[in-house]
Amino acid sequence: MTVPLSLNTVTVRDRWSLAQCIEGCARHGIPGISPWRDKVAEMGLAQAARAIRDAGLAVTGLCRGGMFPAADAAGRAAAIEDNRRAIEEAHALGARCLVVLGGGLPPGSKDLPGARAMLRDGIAAILPEARAAGVTLALEPLHPMTCADRSVLSTLAQALDLCDEFGEGTAVAVDVYHVWWDPDLARQMHRAGTGPEGGRIAAFHACDWLVPTTDLVFDRGMPGDGVIDIPAIRAMAEDAGYAGFTEVEILSRRWWAEDPDDVLRIVKQRHATSC
Amino acid sequence: MTVPLSLNTVTVRDRWSLAQCIEGCARHGIPGISPWRDKVAEMGLAQAARAIRDAGLAVTGLCRGGMFPAADAAGRAAAIEDNRRAIEEAHALGARCLVVLGGGLPPGSKDLPGARAMLRDGIAAILPEARAAGVTLALEPLHPMTCADRSVLSTLAQALDLCDEFGEGTAVAVDVYHVWWDPDLARQMHRAGTGPEGGRIAAFHACDWLVPTTDLVFDRGMPGDGVIDIPAIRAMAEDAGYAGFTEVEILSRRWWAEDPDDVLRIVKQRHATSC
Repeated sequence: MTVPLSLNTVTVRDRWSLAQCIEGCARHGIPGISPWRDKVAEMGLAQAARAIRDAGLAVTGLCRGGMFPAADAAGRAAAIEDNRRAIEEAHALGARCLVVLGGGLPPGSKDLPGARAMLRDGIAAILPEARAAGVTLALEPLHPMTCADRSVLSTLAQALDLCDEFGEGTAVAVDVYHVWWDPDLARQMHRAGTGPEGGRIAAFHACDWLVPTTDLVFDRGMPGDGVIDIPAIRAMAEDAGYAGFTEVEILSRRWWAEDPDDVLRIVKQRHATSC
Repeated sequence: MTVPLSLNTVTVRDRWSLAQCIEGCARHGIPGISPWRDKVAEMGLAQAARAIRDAGLAVTGLCRGGMFPAADAAGRAAAIEDNRRAIEEAHALGARCLVVLGGGLPPGSKDLPGARAMLRDGIAAILPEARAAGVTLALEPLHPMTCADRSVLSTLAQALDLCDEFGEGTAVAVDVYHVWWDPDLARQMHRAGTGPEGGRIAAFHACDWLVPTTDLVFDRGMPGDGVIDIPAIRAMAEDAGYAGFTEVEILSRRWWAEDPDDVLRIVKQRHATSC
């Protein structure tokens, strides 16, 4: 089976607009794209949707919703409103999912269970709209090193517990960077394949863990440059019923400094050899 | 209950020898110490043991054994030999445990399950000597961000699985920095309290997670300066039957630059207010 490739636009975020990403994917023969909301807003939602459709690209996800924990009720309500807009955008783009992130601890808080409850409550609040719009909420656990300031959603087990609770309309996004270290990974990937409606993996993201890693956020590696056995994790996803795109998503100061056309060429090559 | 304090000597490693740490603990009224092996070697094992005994300090652990994964059989054998020496040293010092770290992936390897098997096999190899010497092997899971180059032992669940397998002579070291993010923490801490011989927590380490964290290894925080709810995790340890020391262990370029007497004063204060 040839796995189709998708470009997460953050990979070239510093040099290309969404319009350039769409043209770049077409030029390089990359059949999928996963845009970030700020780039969609910059281009205009309707125009972005049209350009992506005209280019014949699949939208493998919209980045990103979630981020529910906040210091007060007004902050939590604002996050929920923002997620409702994200659902509309995902629907308009025909995205296969809206990627939902946990968000970090509210400023000054040490109440991790409390923040996790806010995440749960946020999902509960937006799920009716997501279901009505036919937009899958792809809960993406992020690496535990992001727990304080980006994601209290830390493991695949935790994401699947939420899927178990909420059922229809929820799934997981598996990013190898965030889950590769997990001693429980094989078991949880298997579990992801056993939802009542079949597999619960809505998206599969790839990049690599560099040795050494010099930044907790912006030092992700090009597939093949690090230590993650990406094909082994992809195989787990396929065993769990996932047959979709591999989306390459690299947040990296090093790659942001390169010519995006070079980056796309290398992404395509590494997708073939290292994913 | 007043929790006794122990100083992990790495906290002041750049400015103080082990002899200075021993004198410093006595001067500041800190009743426990946990030395690193390089500092013990520098002072001489017999002299270190005598000085610690003369100062009336409890040795809450010896840092560190483990680090078993290696690229070839000779490397693995060398690691096992080194651990046998570490067991002798822990015995000579009267240490309550030898802290056992997972070690990272062998250079060039992407075989994480293989490295984890090497860790398991290493423990199996040294356990007879540890039991004969009465030295508890305290398996310490490190934060998942260290998985590639320091610790394939990533979660408390994984450490307790090894304790379940090996039984007598094995236990866990719980460092709040490494486990605070874990959605499964409360359950695993409870599990740690249920070994056949009672609780399986041999050591409790404290420092804090700073926001932002700027280095994956050397940017740990003084208790109280970060987001970890240390008292909540200490309470879990006590519920699991642990009544021992809280050992403050801070790897931090910022604190290494300070006057060690100031550091010890602040450690003592924060132990009282934030642990």
